[in-house]
Amino acid sequence: VLGRPRRLAILAEGQFGPLDAKTAVGVLRYAPGEVAAVIDSTRAGATTQSVVGVGGATPVVRDVEAAARLGADALLIGIAPQGGSLPGAWRPIVLAALARGWDVLSGLHAFLADDPEFAARAAASGARLHDVRRPPGDLPVASAKAAALDALVVLTVGSDCNVGKMTAGLEIVRGLDARGVRAAFVATGQTGIFIAGRGVAIDAVPSDFAAGAIEALVVEAAAGADVVVVEGQGSLFHPGYSGVTLALLHGACPAAMVLCHEASRDAIRRSGEGDRATFPLPAWEGLIEAYERAAAWVEPAAVIAVALNTRALDEPRARAACDAAARATRRPATDPVRFGAAPLVDAVLDARAARERRRASPAGGTRATAP
Amino acid sequence: VLGRPRRLAILAEGQFGPLDAKTAVGVLRYAPGEVAAVIDSTRAGATTQSVVGVGGATPVVRDVEAAARLGADALLIGIAPQGGSLPGAWRPIVLAALARGWDVLSGLHAFLADDPEFAARAAASGARLHDVRRPPGDLPVASAKAAALDALVVLTVGSDCNVGKMTAGLEIVRGLDARGVRAAFVATGQTGIFIAGRGVAIDAVPSDFAAGAIEALVVEAAAGADVVVVEGQGSLFHPGYSGVTLALLHGACPAAMVLCHEASRDAIRRSGEGDRATFPLPAWEGLIEAYERAAAWVEPAAVIAVALNTRALDEPRARAACDAAARATRRPATDPVRFGAAPLVDAVLDARAARERRRASPAGGTRATAP
Repeated sequence: VLGRPRRLAILAEGQFGPLDAKTAVGVLRYAPGEVAAVIDSTRAGATTQSVVGVGGATPVVRDVEAAARLGADALLIGIAPQGGSLPGAWRPIVLAALARGWDVLSGLHAFLADDPEFAARAAASGARLHDVRRPPGDLPVASAKAAALDALVVLTVGSDCNVGKMTAGLEIVRGLDARGVRAAFVATGQTGIFIAGRGVAIDAVPSDFAAGAIEALVVEAAAGADVVVVEGQGSLFHPGYSGVTLALLHGACPAAMVLCHEASRDAIRRSGEGDRATFPLPAWEGLIEAYERAAAWVEPAAVIAVALNTRALDEPRARAACDAAARATRRPATDPVRFGAAPLVDAVLDARAARERRRASPAGGTRATAP
Repeated sequence: VLGRPRRLAILAEGQFGPLDAKTAVGVLRYAPGEVAAVIDSTRAGATTQSVVGVGGATPVVRDVEAAARLGADALLIGIAPQGGSLPGAWRPIVLAALARGWDVLSGLHAFLADDPEFAARAAASGARLHDVRRPPGDLPVASAKAAALDALVVLTVGSDCNVGKMTAGLEIVRGLDARGVRAAFVATGQTGIFIAGRGVAIDAVPSDFAAGAIEALVVEAAAGADVVVVEGQGSLFHPGYSGVTLALLHGACPAAMVLCHEASRDAIRRSGEGDRATFPLPAWEGLIEAYERAAAWVEPAAVIAVALNTRALDEPRARAACDAAARATRRPATDPVRFGAAPLVDAVLDARAARERRRASPAGGTRATAP
């Protein structure tokens, strides 16, 4: 990830679990070949598969030294703690990695490179500190350029935060790859960036350049791909993140959207002192209508399929939830992790074929068709 | 402005005109008592009224020394140049002001305090560099707190950028003041911040905290006001800024919106190399529907009136445009600068009275009513 092949030690000290260590789990699922070990002294000796259900025989070890013996040569911060700062107990671990000359990869809000002690230790050993949330400079203001691309742009959108938008996007790209379609994944959050090796943490970009940052990524990705799948963020229904979501939608200008939802959730989750009660989600048709209307303010786009995260349900209930979503939305619906992404991949390919037909017909599109 | 009474010299060297010097014109219109002079050597000797139509006898002078003789004690950067950096020709003027110990107030993208030469000169003379676009630290994620306030929150929204959202908001606050209603203005852009003496430049805030920054400002302003008027930004129909607009809408959670439009404009203005053609705006009903639907994703809000900027029209056409907008929207419509803000103020007071009645009725609201 990030510039060159690595053998990662993923730091999740005291917090390696399926819910707390979202970044660690994502990297283990989608880039397992780059992970040498997970560091969590409270679970040392286990395999990652036994703790979080992914990563096979990848071992959990007690410290940097043990990870080094397994060939690790870089440290990746594997959780996103409350408040966004590195827990104090983790400082010695980061310092030990830097002392060995390991690069350290972080998606924390607080940039490691701005910490004088870390910066000095890195300078002394030649290690690099990669803060993937730091926004790039010289970003443009978006101008709907992405709507004119030849590649089909697909955006994963969601009913709420943390419902599986990154996972759905990665599974669609995997499925397209397997069918020989040139597909690119545009990462917009820290875990996606670690997995893809590039991208922009959209929520850290100053708000007038958020759409422009995505537009630039999509235009770049489209140069080598027939389908560009963009990782969505937030939700139009979340009071804190809806602006990020709309910036993504109007920056990426997708032709197709995949609607993601956590099957057991019926309200937006809010946290923090003084908040009002959780906020009920609309029914399927309300979700679809909102995203399609919002897209059309700049460029029309259709919700073409539903990706359900059924982690909280047993298998019969998960199947029933997918069937119910398909009936209610009249669109293909699946849990891409549990039941496979084929219905989503089919829907993307159908959308691409339909667009090609429109463009080839005399009445369709404004571009000339190639002979 | 900004912490204490000042006598401002507004820097607009070579660019003092009604269109280029938007910040200068705004401050002259709404805080004329704080302006000692405008600096533009190419127009020295004129009054601001004769050049930009506001500010009365306020003189235009050739340099900092001339402004000092008129009692100026601070320099305000009065234009927003392409690219966001200070033009090179202006550096000596800023340095001259700092040498006199004047504070310098700037809304440029490039922060003056980060310029080593300016910082050193300010440190030497005891002057302060106020970069009003620098986002505050420790911002919250928004959670729709503002929807529960006693004060009526009003947001100005627009068909596009630069159509009069700040002006409409300031005129409404003036009108409410004149009728004895405790009204607060929440500034969200550089000119508004200079005029109000506080606020946050929302487009410079990292996107996941943009709504939270506005929520915090609105909650604070509501403590001393019966009506809080929030300065809108951008447009839901602008591909580059729609995310900023939605963050404002869901952060402020207004009960009422005033829709602002430039009467001669029928398309979103886009600039920059490689852009597609300008983007046609929907008709009035489409604009109103978009804002009301987007608000309702978190909290319902109604468009209660229309503020037209008729600068480009002669007076009969301006009157006709207001009448046509009122008929088409079935809402009060006026140009608040040209014809007065009374219809907008009436609409705000009507909305407040209607909400009080709803809250006092047995079926309305969830809050207990005071005896």
